[in-house]
Amino acid sequence: MQNALPVTRAGDFAAWYQAVVDQADLAEESGVRGCMIIRPWGYGVWQRMQELLDRRFRDTGHENCYFPLFIPLSYIAREAQHVEGFAKEMAVVTHHRLKMIDGTLKPDPDAKLEEPLIVRPTSETVIGAAFHRWVRSHRDLPLLLNQWANVVRWEMRPRLFLRTAEFLWQEGHTAHATAEEAREETARMLEVYRSFAEEVLAMPVIAGEKPAHERFPGADNTYSIEAMMQDGKALQAGTAHYLGTNFSEAQSIRYQTEAGDLAFAHTTSWGVSTRLVGGVVMTHGDDDGLRLPPIVAPRQVVLIPMLRDKPEDAGVLEFCEALAAQLNAAQAFGEPVRALVDKKAGRAIDKRWAWIKRGVPVICDIGARDVASGNVTYIRRDQLRSGEKVLSQALPRAQFVAQIGELLSGIHGALYQAARQRMLDNIRTDITTFAALAAHFGSAAQASDEDAGAEFRGWAKVAWSRPEGAALAKVEQQLKSLKLTVRNAPLAQDPITDQRCLFSGEPAREFVLVGRSY
Amino acid sequence: MQNALPVTRAGDFAAWYQAVVDQADLAEESGVRGCMIIRPWGYGVWQRMQELLDRRFRDTGHENCYFPLFIPLSYIAREAQHVEGFAKEMAVVTHHRLKMIDGTLKPDPDAKLEEPLIVRPTSETVIGAAFHRWVRSHRDLPLLLNQWANVVRWEMRPRLFLRTAEFLWQEGHTAHATAEEAREETARMLEVYRSFAEEVLAMPVIAGEKPAHERFPGADNTYSIEAMMQDGKALQAGTAHYLGTNFSEAQSIRYQTEAGDLAFAHTTSWGVSTRLVGGVVMTHGDDDGLRLPPIVAPRQVVLIPMLRDKPEDAGVLEFCEALAAQLNAAQAFGEPVRALVDKKAGRAIDKRWAWIKRGVPVICDIGARDVASGNVTYIRRDQLRSGEKVLSQALPRAQFVAQIGELLSGIHGALYQAARQRMLDNIRTDITTFAALAAHFGSAAQASDEDAGAEFRGWAKVAWSRPEGAALAKVEQQLKSLKLTVRNAPLAQDPITDQRCLFSGEPAREFVLVGRSY
Repeated sequence: MQNALPVTRAGDFAAWYQAVVDQADLAEESGVRGCMIIRPWGYGVWQRMQELLDRRFRDTGHENCYFPLFIPLSYIAREAQHVEGFAKEMAVVTHHRLKMIDGTLKPDPDAKLEEPLIVRPTSETVIGAAFHRWVRSHRDLPLLLNQWANVVRWEMRPRLFLRTAEFLWQEGHTAHATAEEAREETARMLEVYRSFAEEVLAMPVIAGEKPAHERFPGADNTYSIEAMMQDGKALQAGTAHYLGTNFSEAQSIRYQTEAGDLAFAHTTSWGVSTRLVGGVVMTHGDDDGLRLPPIVAPRQVVLIPMLRDKPEDAGVLEFCEALAAQLNAAQAFGEPVRALVDKKAGRAIDKRWAWIKRGVPVICDIGARDVASGNVTYIRRDQLRSGEKVLSQALPRAQFVAQIGELLSGIHGALYQAARQRMLDNIRTDITTFAALAAHFGSAAQASDEDAGAEFRGWAKVAWSRPEGAALAKVEQQLKSLKLTVRNAPLAQDPITDQRCLFSGEPAREFVLVGRSY
Repeated sequence: MQNALPVTRAGDFAAWYQAVVDQADLAEESGVRGCMIIRPWGYGVWQRMQELLDRRFRDTGHENCYFPLFIPLSYIAREAQHVEGFAKEMAVVTHHRLKMIDGTLKPDPDAKLEEPLIVRPTSETVIGAAFHRWVRSHRDLPLLLNQWANVVRWEMRPRLFLRTAEFLWQEGHTAHATAEEAREETARMLEVYRSFAEEVLAMPVIAGEKPAHERFPGADNTYSIEAMMQDGKALQAGTAHYLGTNFSEAQSIRYQTEAGDLAFAHTTSWGVSTRLVGGVVMTHGDDDGLRLPPIVAPRQVVLIPMLRDKPEDAGVLEFCEALAAQLNAAQAFGEPVRALVDKKAGRAIDKRWAWIKRGVPVICDIGARDVASGNVTYIRRDQLRSGEKVLSQALPRAQFVAQIGELLSGIHGALYQAARQRMLDNIRTDITTFAALAAHFGSAAQASDEDAGAEFRGWAKVAWSRPEGAALAKVEQQLKSLKLTVRNAPLAQDPITDQRCLFSGEPAREFVLVGRSY
């Protein structure tokens, strides 16, 4: 039996990704370079992520706020002086009016802004300025804020969800009295991201610390969660930064201590974005489309009435509505189940495949026979096929309703386990020389831009001596020649015994993951 | 006893509004002209509004989506040709890079966009373009979408929440096969707004239709809900438009009918914004600060432990925590109660007044005496004072917990009734001549821009003949001389018997509300 998508993962991973995003109605190009339209099904997934992350942020004591879209150029100029790897690609607003000039609508020369405004690439600078105003005394600390917002970073090679000029994200910003508290906060939020990725998105990740050259500019420490996509590349799925007093010194975020002295606050920041939707696609999707982890599926169960323009139709519809009501009254993952009866016009078989491509965890075709027998016939999206056929399973209705929570949680577990096994199976731990690394990954020349149809190479966990300065720059160059980067040094480290650094041959200090990445 | 705010509503309403927004920690100026920082307490109120509106939109069959921040100039140019009252004040992005030129960071002349991008003032045009792509057949209809987003409209005289360059809003956009369905949708969403304003925000409103000259450009019918602020001015708190086929003709949104013909879809749009937060302030605030309707209060009950650095403190804290846990397990308005123990450092009396200014519905000072007696002493924010004193009430703890839902719903009801009575008492229905109207409202010269300390004039419900064309323009001018506008023609109309139009003297056709407005 043919796959539902015109391309396969093995055939052309990048084209497959594009096909899933399109066929699952997640998003589309907008006609504005690099900006996407997030369609209802895709936005539904993001909204579920947002809701569940927001709850976790609240439970860890954070409050939401909202800062302006525009940042005065002078703020950016100030930051540009402080920060080395300062990015200059940003959208610049220069006028505040349009005018019809010689029959053409143009920016009105009389409405030029005195100071250009930048569309926020992050709100770091304006939030820092607010912290400067808000933090006075140790009593004001910790200050634990989060913002949900759209941000803009000009992208030369945009890809839906993964690299878009505009994207949606959250950015947490916190200020603390001590380094210890700020470090605890950083670790706490990294753990929130790890558990969210694994327990909600069924996406296994490795949490760890970025090496010096991969740190966020201005951070003392940068941590990430890295997920392995089905082409073996890494997706950085979330980051948390301990910023020390670097930003508070630059922005004068000071507080009066209990003893009455003035001290700089220790700050952190952390964020995830709509990129996570791309991560879900590339972690769980198959050649028939998307497979959604049930917790973020906008609909977890879709019932498709098989209508035949016959008198039995009324009974079928009634059966579906009653079953949906029962399901919606049941619980999964501590929340009401989200079931839908798809009553739109159209052939049942077309609807079935549309929902398969959209990745609904449980899809039920309900016909007159089911009504007569009192059974529910269902497809588990994660067990779609048995040999050449679509695998349908059946349960007595009462049992199906009683077990729906268990069924959905079984699907979550199966998706997670499969992804985890794939990740673990594809982290090479036996590579100890650069020659072996090069042999495994092949040269950069072989790795095309999107690595279409490339052999699955995964990651390598290698020992290194944590080089610095010129030695680190050399390592970076070596890795670059293979199109590799150090993803992170996992928090969970195997003990170092007599290993040597793969690059320098010096005694190793820790293991790091290297791989290609998005 | 002095009021908590330095200004009163009667003294200077505009300054009072500013003081509430500031002292209740709702929002502040950002340093970017016309853009505000929404502080956690203010954002918490907005987030509650968003959550509860979103549920209503979903329950009426709508799905959320997200469209790009930027709109190509050509889209706007196309619209400018179609739409008469086209607003041209918009933020224009002309460059995509910054460059250090002679030591100054500037828009890079080499990175000028070929076509300028406009920061969306609404997404009408891009959503229309998407509808053009998405609507093919009658099976695709109705298409019921909503977007939560930030939008930008350059404002020359910004005021926090009421008129800001950037604001947060939702915009609903729908397409239907028939005029009838689209009209039903418009009425349905207007009713969602009305019930939300009254049942959630405790803000009484009059739902009605705007006269021709106040319609959204391009709409066949525009409806609004109008709320009366405590200075007697009207706040347009939400609008819903039936757009006929005007937009679908301009943007070619066509579908194939069941019979196989091509027909234009009938579209609607509807929206509310962060302006609603300003409406809540001006509807319920008093001279001691904000009073929040309990359903949108981020915290409904705040417990303030009165600590004295004595051994009893531990018992007081324990009592507070246990009480908060009991309250959070209780229900109000069908949801868990939101209670908080304020353990921040500081004097209990300062904290009490901070929460009073922030408008928390129920505030409890808990001391050793309460622990000993097992009582809960509380302040109802809507019944703050009894003569010269703050009115504290007490209930046995178990009873307080058992009655918390009732108490909160009583506060909602009291706020609503007071506002409703004020609105009804201040709609004059006995004005039948323009001279009487002028005598009641005074001249525009007397009404300063922000009407500081102005006499409470409310609205007038007057009969008119629904003039058109030149006659309507004349009425508009007459009203303008009094700084008045027609707010709407209420849906609930008294029967017209022998009334004459206040303006033309011709037989009246309906009653309309006139008043000053935000």
